[in-house]
Amino acid sequence: MTKAEFPSQHQPLAVPALGEPYLLTPGPLTTSKATKEAMLRDWGSWDGAFNTLTAQVRKQLLSMAGVEDDSFACVPLQGSGSYSVEAALASAIPRDGKALVLMNGAYGQRATKTLEYLGRDYITLDKGDYLPPQPEEVDALLNANPDVTNVFIVHCETSSGILNPLREIAEVVETHGKSLIIDAMSSFGAVPLSVDDIRFDVLVSSANKCIEGIPGFGFVIIRRAVLEAAKGRANSLSLDLYEQWVYMERTGQWRFTPPTHSVVAFHKALEQHQAEGGVQGRLARYTRNRDVLVAGMRKLGFKTLLEDRWLSPIITTFFSPEHVNFEFKRFYEELKARQFIIYPGKLTVADSFRIGCIGQIDEHIVHQLLRAIADSLLAMGVELEAA
Amino acid sequence: MTKAEFPSQHQPLAVPALGEPYLLTPGPLTTSKATKEAMLRDWGSWDGAFNTLTAQVRKQLLSMAGVEDDSFACVPLQGSGSYSVEAALASAIPRDGKALVLMNGAYGQRATKTLEYLGRDYITLDKGDYLPPQPEEVDALLNANPDVTNVFIVHCETSSGILNPLREIAEVVETHGKSLIIDAMSSFGAVPLSVDDIRFDVLVSSANKCIEGIPGFGFVIIRRAVLEAAKGRANSLSLDLYEQWVYMERTGQWRFTPPTHSVVAFHKALEQHQAEGGVQGRLARYTRNRDVLVAGMRKLGFKTLLEDRWLSPIITTFFSPEHVNFEFKRFYEELKARQFIIYPGKLTVADSFRIGCIGQIDEHIVHQLLRAIADSLLAMGVELEAA
Ligand SMILES: Cc1ncc(COP(=O)(O)O)c(C=O)c1O
Ligand SMILES: Cc1ncc(COP(=O)(O)O)c(C=O)c1O
Repeated sequence: MTKAEFPSQHQPLAVPALGEPYLLTPGPLTTSKATKEAMLRDWGSWDGAFNTLTAQVRKQLLSMAGVEDDSFACVPLQGSGSYSVEAALASAIPRDGKALVLMNGAYGQRATKTLEYLGRDYITLDKGDYLPPQPEEVDALLNANPDVTNVFIVHCETSSGILNPLREIAEVVETHGKSLIIDAMSSFGAVPLSVDDIRFDVLVSSANKCIEGIPGFGFVIIRRAVLEAAKGRANSLSLDLYEQWVYMERTGQWRFTPPTHSVVAFHKALEQHQAEGGVQGRLARYTRNRDVLVAGMRKLGFKTLLEDRWLSPIITTFFSPEHVNFEFKRFYEELKARQFIIYPGKLTVADSFRIGCIGQIDEHIVHQLLRAIADSLLAMGVELEAA
Repeated sequence: MTKAEFPSQHQPLAVPALGEPYLLTPGPLTTSKATKEAMLRDWGSWDGAFNTLTAQVRKQLLSMAGVEDDSFACVPLQGSGSYSVEAALASAIPRDGKALVLMNGAYGQRATKTLEYLGRDYITLDKGDYLPPQPEEVDALLNANPDVTNVFIVHCETSSGILNPLREIAEVVETHGKSLIIDAMSSFGAVPLSVDDIRFDVLVSSANKCIEGIPGFGFVIIRRAVLEAAKGRANSLSLDLYEQWVYMERTGQWRFTPPTHSVVAFHKALEQHQAEGGVQGRLARYTRNRDVLVAGMRKLGFKTLLEDRWLSPIITTFFSPEHVNFEFKRFYEELKARQFIIYPGKLTVADSFRIGCIGQIDEHIVHQLLRAIADSLLAMGVELEAA
């Protein structure tokens, strides 16, 4: 794991209200007071003031992805992140196209399920629970399957916490002249991902991940030519990304009722994102969170699922210790009583749990968490040996 | 128009923050301070505390529809109200079924557009911009088209403000043994609609209408047998109502990331709904709002689109006066400068605008609005003759 190249943030972060736990989860996450307070007002969804906020949000997201011209569009969409993934797949993959889905966890799997609903043909590279897809494997599959039109990859596969080798794979995909779709749900805003660097057609993320907004909508950053070709492709009115875009361009409004408060909170969250130093600033804080977390957990005797080089600064999976007294449910409750909410594991092969590094959390809070974990183990009668 | 049968509320409503306008729109609307303040905390979407809120919301919505047993289920769904309509149509109408869509405005039209995407067969009874569908017409159409399986009706067609004759039409649909789907988006919670009274299979509404929550999700109240028959019918993963329901029943959680803050605000809004006397209490306040509005507007010289008997207590359409100085855009801005946001019209035949009666608005605020309208007309140099 590389050390953070930036000094950690030293402004004290907002302390949640009394009794409110920190969310060490992959989102919804602990957001700032300012972000939540932005929701203390109601906005007319038809009014110019709200349209201005929407336009600014779209522009800032494009700029976060390095887009400075109109070669790409940003289309926000009501619903959770999966809705935006579905809308993106339905738009970017021609009805007679064929996708290669790179799978190493729950969100790659969900993409294939989505394709089943959409009636789009696909093949997979299934690496199981957590192994990274290798560029050579992708190359071989694309050689063997020239009819593949699109490749789908999950940037940070949140179910294990692995940061997949996006750059290397994007290069292979580009060489083959295929269209790349990136699920950057849990990484965008904290892991650099720019059109200058990585050749892609579609990137999907959502409000309540690394930009630290509240849930309510996702967004798709999509090459304009690909979006224009998507006219008439969708099989859902609500998830028709092309129509959402055309309407928004024409009127400045969302096609259907927007999650006004979520949009306004997100606008506020973007301000803070910028004030923290943009993607680099956020990466520095999250990386520091992860480094402190992983070092501290190892000292307590926990083991990470992944080798250091694959650990994302987003979320880390730890094996459940094999101690007879360790039970996740009890561990969860002990930590919750100490004001920390962690996340269950999602592996099929081994008992595990996950701890997120994202949201309004800094290393001081991670240190508090580590003390709470030590106390919880004590309360449970679990003694571990440090690695 | 019938006078309100209940005394108007005299607790003063929350005044919006300085400079914040009242939203006299059909949602998003002006919500209470308490509802917005409920969003000042973050919730883990996996945590038991949040699951409890979701369960309570679902139960209270069923009970608002008069459901006291498990013959119906309430399934909330991320996204705007149109998403829930789409999910409901995809679930309730068999793939080889055929719908009769009763249309008299934008939302009936949107239902047919949705059916096009879903590939479901349908016929329509198109009454144009605002005329009510007549029970005899429905009867005749069902006689002539025995292959119709479902009838779709919009309860309050928000585009004109008409309250359609639901009861009479439901009786006809029941006589023919067809399955009734009600878009009660803008009426549920303020216009009584109970399974004891009206035979229906599906009812759709959303968070940011008469229950006065903030946008983020819709919900479907659906006969359990109909929902069970919907397994495998959806053509969208995100909008698969059956899967959403099964997952929620099994885990207590939402299938994908829920709009946590919107759910918590809605939970708070439901508390206030109950404290106000439930549906009857809300109906009384909205009816009083409408009565004061319509009487005051007529005194100012405006004319309603609809005859009194069709006016809903939700939103009222007024014709734009034919005075040479009247221009909607200017009128809108004048009113906005006076802290009131109104809504444009949606008629194809005539210039009009709409004023909503829902949200945290009472007759005192409507009186203020009427003064602001009088002042705006003066500022625009528009003199009208009282009707
Ligand atoms: C990589 C990835 N993809 C997709 C999703 C699905 O997003 P949502 O739960 O908002 O539908 C998530 C959620 O955590 C994710 O991490
Ligand atoms: C009757 C009716 N149906 C459907 C809708 C669509 O809801 P949404 O804008 O939340 O998608 C509305 C919105 O006002 C409505 O009034």
